[in-house]
Amino acid sequence: MREPDSAWSRNRLGSCKGAEVTASAGMACELIRFMSPDDANIAGNVHGGTILKMIEEAGAIISTRHCNSQPGEPCVAALARVERTDFLSPMCIGEVATVSAEITYTSRRSVEVQVNVLSENILTGAKKVTNRATLWYVPLSLKNVDKVLEVPPVQYMRKEQEEEGKKRYEQQKLERLETKQRNGDMIFPVINPDPYTVGYSQSSLIHLVGPSDCTLLGFVHGGVTMKLMDEVAGIVAARHCKTNIVTASVDAINFHEKIKKGCVITISGRMTFTSNKSMEIEVFVDADPFVDEPQERYRAVSAFFTYVSLSKEGKPLPVPQLVTETEDEKKRFEEGKGRYLQTKAKRQVHLQPLAQQ
Amino acid sequence: MREPDSAWSRNRLGSCKGAEVTASAGMACELIRFMSPDDANIAGNVHGGTILKMIEEAGAIISTRHCNSQPGEPCVAALARVERTDFLSPMCIGEVATVSAEITYTSRRSVEVQVNVLSENILTGAKKVTNRATLWYVPLSLKNVDKVLEVPPVQYMRKEQEEEGKKRYEQQKLERLETKQRNGDMIFPVINPDPYTVGYSQSSLIHLVGPSDCTLLGFVHGGVTMKLMDEVAGIVAARHCKTNIVTASVDAINFHEKIKKGCVITISGRMTFTSNKSMEIEVFVDADPFVDEPQERYRAVSAFFTYVSLSKEGKPLPVPQLVTETEDEKKRFEEGKGRYLQTKAKRQVHLQPLAQQ
Amino acid sequence: MREPDSAWSRNRLGSCKGAEVTASAGMACELIRFMSPDDANIAGNVHGGTILKMIEEAGAIISTRHCNSQPGEPCVAALARVERTDFLSPMCIGEVATVSAEITYTSRRSVEVQVNVLSENILTGAKKVTNRATLWYVPLSLKNVDKVLEVPPVQYMRKEQEEEGKKRYEQQKLERLETKQRNGDMIFPVINPDPYTVGYSQSSLIHLVGPSDCTLLGFVHGGVTMKLMDEVAGIVAARHCKTNIVTASVDAINFHEKIKKGCVITISGRMTFTSNKSMEIEVFVDADPFVDEPQERYRAVSAFFTYVSLSKEGKPLPVPQLVTETEDEKKRFEEGKGRYLQTKAKRQVHLQPLAQQ
Repeated sequence: MREPDSAWSRNRLGSCKGAEVTASAGMACELIRFMSPDDANIAGNVHGGTILKMIEEAGAIISTRHCNSQPGEPCVAALARVERTDFLSPMCIGEVATVSAEITYTSRRSVEVQVNVLSENILTGAKKVTNRATLWYVPLSLKNVDKVLEVPPVQYMRKEQEEEGKKRYEQQKLERLETKQRNGDMIFPVINPDPYTVGYSQSSLIHLVGPSDCTLLGFVHGGVTMKLMDEVAGIVAARHCKTNIVTASVDAINFHEKIKKGCVITISGRMTFTSNKSMEIEVFVDADPFVDEPQERYRAVSAFFTYVSLSKEGKPLPVPQLVTETEDEKKRFEEGKGRYLQTKAKRQVHLQPLAQQ
Repeated sequence: MREPDSAWSRNRLGSCKGAEVTASAGMACELIRFMSPDDANIAGNVHGGTILKMIEEAGAIISTRHCNSQPGEPCVAALARVERTDFLSPMCIGEVATVSAEITYTSRRSVEVQVNVLSENILTGAKKVTNRATLWYVPLSLKNVDKVLEVPPVQYMRKEQEEEGKKRYEQQKLERLETKQRNGDMIFPVINPDPYTVGYSQSSLIHLVGPSDCTLLGFVHGGVTMKLMDEVAGIVAARHCKTNIVTASVDAINFHEKIKKGCVITISGRMTFTSNKSMEIEVFVDADPFVDEPQERYRAVSAFFTYVSLSKEGKPLPVPQLVTETEDEKKRFEEGKGRYLQTKAKRQVHLQPLAQQ
Repeated sequence: MREPDSAWSRNRLGSCKGAEVTASAGMACELIRFMSPDDANIAGNVHGGTILKMIEEAGAIISTRHCNSQPGEPCVAALARVERTDFLSPMCIGEVATVSAEITYTSRRSVEVQVNVLSENILTGAKKVTNRATLWYVPLSLKNVDKVLEVPPVQYMRKEQEEEGKKRYEQQKLERLETKQRNGDMIFPVINPDPYTVGYSQSSLIHLVGPSDCTLLGFVHGGVTMKLMDEVAGIVAARHCKTNIVTASVDAINFHEKIKKGCVITISGRMTFTSNKSMEIEVFVDADPFVDEPQERYRAVSAFFTYVSLSKEGKPLPVPQLVTETEDEKKRFEEGKGRYLQTKAKRQVHLQPLAQQ
């Protein structure tokens, strides 16, 4: 969680600045796009997944550019991790999204990118911060996709920036290791589930990976995966509460396994926890490289999405409580509650200034 | 700066050819498009589904145009049925597809459209007929989607054209009724299936219907549905034989139920029959209008796709025989064999001249 | 099943009309497409960029076809220049666009294509000319992209057609040379700009070039570039006047430098001039081949777009005057005024008949 008063989080509308962390040319990068009906749900709210996809595209461009900024083997930066991301205010059809990315730290083999998303109501000129995200990329050789190359170092204006970056780097490294353990779970169909049970709302999407989903290396863009994950989480949430639902936040996502062009991917979601006004949905992505004989289906990513339900006026609505039936479901509900309370506590400490925006 | 009175700038609408079946303006319509990597599989062969989607777009334009050609209630032509379609030769990335549609018959409440698809290697100038399709559309009122309007009659050059059209109309009406009966079947997951069994290759895709999938009436374009159906059939075929596979033909498809924007659709496929060099795959489309409370999931469409397996040189390869296990699978295999033999017999009678092209 | 010898199934390639300029088969080519929500802004007006992209696709097909119509080295026609293009009337979602292209002149190494765009309200049958464009293509060898091949000559019905074409050819050649000089300009971010200044509305857009953006030669389609240019110009215009804005015209665009697959392209726009009811926006495209080590970022294209602001009823609205601050901005404003007055004068001379359509 970043402090909103840092150099980075100042209003970045001013476009591509070197800011305080500087050195290589093209340190910041901006991506602007009109939001169209295809980006949004029926109520006109842009899908969280569309925003995550834009965030990742900006991150991939800036980090690939940075990693190729010194002579050496050409490479493509691949997404390794996205830190927990909050959706601070909704974005609507017809608004302009401005996504600014900046490199804020480099370790020997990874790049930290911070991304800011603004929505701009082009008719009134009103601008709002809708997201702040932190992503980690690693440079993979264009000739040998299994080889991670070295990252040219960035220069910092203040010594503390490097130290803070290093702390964030160590922290995420630990968390990445932890999540490598879990991930074994599966979702099975339930016949005639009762309303508000886990089986009632659980959902899947299945997608064949095409050329436009992939990077130059022939692997799925992290942003494409996150968009599908958000889509399935949205279906689970809508099935549960039958109202207009929007993404409130996404927990940290680790990309341990790449997904290759031509795979079939199954994205499954199930509700794990409900508070009075929010739902937590666990999402799994499984890749099946069905033509490559020896390779088995594998778990590529998993994450927790939090959704809220909105009235027609855009006010949060109460959410029907999740009915847990099995021991596993009860356990997951308790774990979800733990995450919910922890986040709530953190938010009270760190994010207070945001409320004033 | 051109003068608007030059030969070039004359109104070019005259390009809609009346051909032999004529009367209302704009009887024929043509659609031309470059084939891009997004349209094709890894071997560079354009998906049958991409072609079906273009065929349906041309058919929808010409029949909507015709049905609105006389004063009265505005309407949108909706796809009711596609007759059996053969893929006569492959289309590749970089080639130009030319899709020509023509109205060949009208009943009181339906329109028959015949569509021709040509592939053109733009470098050598070589052109090949890749498809011929016949589609049936019905005009639905723009104000009341459940109301089928009357179709303005076409005029025929020769009396026999009308009579032949009427025969085709009666024939398809009968067949439509028949298929309304079956459709109850479901596909269930199989744990650890053996190679070459039905469970080994069965597959699904799940898709959330977005605005760009839909017509002005807010229902999914028939062509969008067919593209997804072909995609799942292709996955089943590739899982079975692990080679480059292409669509050889599609049996008649009847669209009994519309699918609305916002539905989740599940497209499932299972292999039903293999001959020496072909595979038959049955595909189901189920729509789940999950937010509209009272409505249940329903079967919207089903169809049989035939695939062949190709070597790197584009020659047909032998196909591993399907291993049937249950009584139902054995029954479906025999039914598929029946369809296979019937088509083979028909082809020898009717399509001989095609072989000479 | 139809008999292949029926009237309908005769080879329909004959639909490529020879018109008056004739000789090689397939001189004209037509492209028809439904306009979907993805093609339009929130008010339902199809983006000028979508239309430019279709125009270029039709031009690329017909000129590539022509350049390969005689035995010799295979080639791909690459867009070299688009003449000034006016948007004569708006196109809307649900309408059908018909794009007809015809070759009107050939020099030794270039092809002139004229393209006509019609919008068709398929419910009422109403048709309108929305655009007329002239494009110049050059044939590049498929084996050596830096080699320009010779163009087979077209035959003309009337001697004057050839002479008029030659004049247009000489004229555009001169203009191409001129624009090769400028192009050095850059757009810098402005902190806290005042409303209606240049810095207030300037915008950029970053895009990673993917496989489906490219021709067989692996270079970006001119139409893809123009679509992105129009998108950024639209954002600039909307930021300036906060209303529904539409493309009114595009000045001649010269494509001096190709853009390769895998590049990152930055498309930047800034307002240069406002009249009472129109805005002129200058757009730059810079390509960054960041993976190819030695190559520097370069200016690939630049152009001027003119936009108008529309009321809800589709009537032109007054535009807030652009506030120029620096000497450069004032100079550009005067230059823009010059272009505006020149176009206005030309239109009064040449385009009078159009007003009667």
